[in-house]
Amino acid sequence: MQAFSFKNPTKIIFGAGQIKLLGPELVADGIKHCLLIAGGGSIKANGVYEQVTDSLQKAGIVISESWGVQANPRLDKVRELIALARELQVDAILAVGGGSVIDSAKAVAAGFYLNDIWNAFRGSEQVKQALPIYTVLTLSATGSEMNGNAVITNNDTTQKWGISSALIYPRLSIIDPSVQFTLSFRQTASGAIDAIAHILEFYFANDTAKSTLAINAALLKTIVEMTDRLKLNAGDYEARANLAWAATLALNGTSGIGLNGGDWACHAIEHSFSALHQEIAHGEGLGVIFPAWIGYVSDRAPARFAAWAKEVWAEDSVSLALHKFRGKLEEWEMPGSLRDLGIKDPELPTLVEIILSGAPRGLGEVFKLSKDDLQALLVLAF
Amino acid sequence: MQAFSFKNPTKIIFGAGQIKLLGPELVADGIKHCLLIAGGGSIKANGVYEQVTDSLQKAGIVISESWGVQANPRLDKVRELIALARELQVDAILAVGGGSVIDSAKAVAAGFYLNDIWNAFRGSEQVKQALPIYTVLTLSATGSEMNGNAVITNNDTTQKWGISSALIYPRLSIIDPSVQFTLSFRQTASGAIDAIAHILEFYFANDTAKSTLAINAALLKTIVEMTDRLKLNAGDYEARANLAWAATLALNGTSGIGLNGGDWACHAIEHSFSALHQEIAHGEGLGVIFPAWIGYVSDRAPARFAAWAKEVWAEDSVSLALHKFRGKLEEWEMPGSLRDLGIKDPELPTLVEIILSGAPRGLGEVFKLSKDDLQALLVLAF
Repeated sequence: MQAFSFKNPTKIIFGAGQIKLLGPELVADGIKHCLLIAGGGSIKANGVYEQVTDSLQKAGIVISESWGVQANPRLDKVRELIALARELQVDAILAVGGGSVIDSAKAVAAGFYLNDIWNAFRGSEQVKQALPIYTVLTLSATGSEMNGNAVITNNDTTQKWGISSALIYPRLSIIDPSVQFTLSFRQTASGAIDAIAHILEFYFANDTAKSTLAINAALLKTIVEMTDRLKLNAGDYEARANLAWAATLALNGTSGIGLNGGDWACHAIEHSFSALHQEIAHGEGLGVIFPAWIGYVSDRAPARFAAWAKEVWAEDSVSLALHKFRGKLEEWEMPGSLRDLGIKDPELPTLVEIILSGAPRGLGEVFKLSKDDLQALLVLAF
Repeated sequence: MQAFSFKNPTKIIFGAGQIKLLGPELVADGIKHCLLIAGGGSIKANGVYEQVTDSLQKAGIVISESWGVQANPRLDKVRELIALARELQVDAILAVGGGSVIDSAKAVAAGFYLNDIWNAFRGSEQVKQALPIYTVLTLSATGSEMNGNAVITNNDTTQKWGISSALIYPRLSIIDPSVQFTLSFRQTASGAIDAIAHILEFYFANDTAKSTLAINAALLKTIVEMTDRLKLNAGDYEARANLAWAATLALNGTSGIGLNGGDWACHAIEHSFSALHQEIAHGEGLGVIFPAWIGYVSDRAPARFAAWAKEVWAEDSVSLALHKFRGKLEEWEMPGSLRDLGIKDPELPTLVEIILSGAPRGLGEVFKLSKDDLQALLVLAF
């Protein structure tokens, strides 16, 4: 078990009907004027927008709004939002949406105090201050509601990069699982795969943190079970709630305790897919690359992969477990290959270049993937 | 899954050799003078005291010391410490020890600003402010290093009562598992049982929070496995580390998510044992009452107890699982009955009176124990 430091100051309010508590919480924190950031309008269809604005208005909070954050959120939109936040002199950022909206809110909150927010992603400016961030979550997937990470795509350079800072943990996140009843199963499953991938990025990195590995196996099994239930009934509250909480735990620090920081090769590879094809859902990209990666590297740390096979899939061999994992993704009607994702054969070298531009000396912790490995892995996944 | 609110602001620094980080952390927080609270001197024998004072002195922190906190910490000692903290005008409380020392530190930190700290336990004064609390943990058991609870015994009234407040979470806890190498196996096992009991108090309270129940089963199995390893080798670092972290998670909020606040009948009953016999270790008392309680109430919520039997003990029947649980406690050479704990037959009615004085309308969530139930249960455990 590796030495670690852990602190997660985000407050979570969780349960059906809890969005009404948002206004009083902001008042208690002394917030007077927030910038509400949202996506394309689904929060108007599912009633979340009305619940949020009702609660804020009753509490006397001034709301300014900006819409149009996209999946794989873009730097140009973030810069536009920073300019708006400065112009309005808001004292908090409120994200109402999924991970893309929350990540954008974090970048805005930090960028409010920087010369240029992309400098923080490039490492040439440091986040030293941030506006307080509040979130109302509408899609369980990224875990961004309870961590200090944000991933933004620079559309000029096709770099999809991340920042981490103790200053961009949301102060409060409200998770009402019932607002996710209206998600399509494709959205639900894609979110579930993102959460599974977060746990797997840690799972194989170390084998002495048995307490964390046992929790991670429990979370992986829970996510699969709840996603199966939601395939049958999108309005199963208990399944929504347990999937939502498991997805939060998948990347709030809990799943990485003592595990050496994790591997993150599959995330970096997937980021290249969606940097090139912004229409690719992050979870779907991960669902293609993760099984391929397990097949490619599992003989480098056989004991760890055997433990995963046994604990998560009740199988004695990694290949049987991998077969079950792929079968589950197929059952969930997820894309099975890069081709299914819409990636073309001639694009593979470009993907390798994009990946290596963020990790010039190769990437991965369980096994460091070289340029040759990346090429071979992408061909396998194609 | 019940609605919940969760926030745990404690920072954890975990790993061998990490105590040296204490001084710089206090400096970063602006602390100048701390009151170091400790027990009977074991921290001098195991080198922890030297590491702590070295780190603080190098950082220029003034240290005042007070020794002599006992197991089942007493109100009179807490009052003495509050007077001392006021006299010295310290700006932080530093607990170096196990749960008793940490709980005392919390009561001192809150009592510093109250007319009388016992009023907070009785409910007639509210904790509105507290000195910052730092801890260096030397025995994994109570989880007090990462929660806002403190249990203190009023020696005048034999009441062993608790307080909970967001203001008494430690600001920082350092957990170096290697300092626990010198614990006796009896201390280790008693701590492990305390952690097991914390999880079990939640485990049976609700059956829809599957994500939490899966984590709790994982933690219970991990605690048993690591305690078994420590019986063979007290210096097994990985076993110490995983047991330590599992014991922290057992009562830092994680194990109770969505589980309705838990049951806590066994804790209340055990508190009566040690209120009457201060020499009884909390974990040993719990090891006697918990199996008896499971036997007494398991037919009131058969599905939940069957899940425990299957998930934790891989048994299809509760009675077989209970047999394994008792067998494990016996293997760890823990007392098996109230008689083994040194309690005498004529004391049983007094115990019932003490329990009911804290819960006049009976106690328990899975099953509300009446006076008659308590009498029957204590006879069973005798």
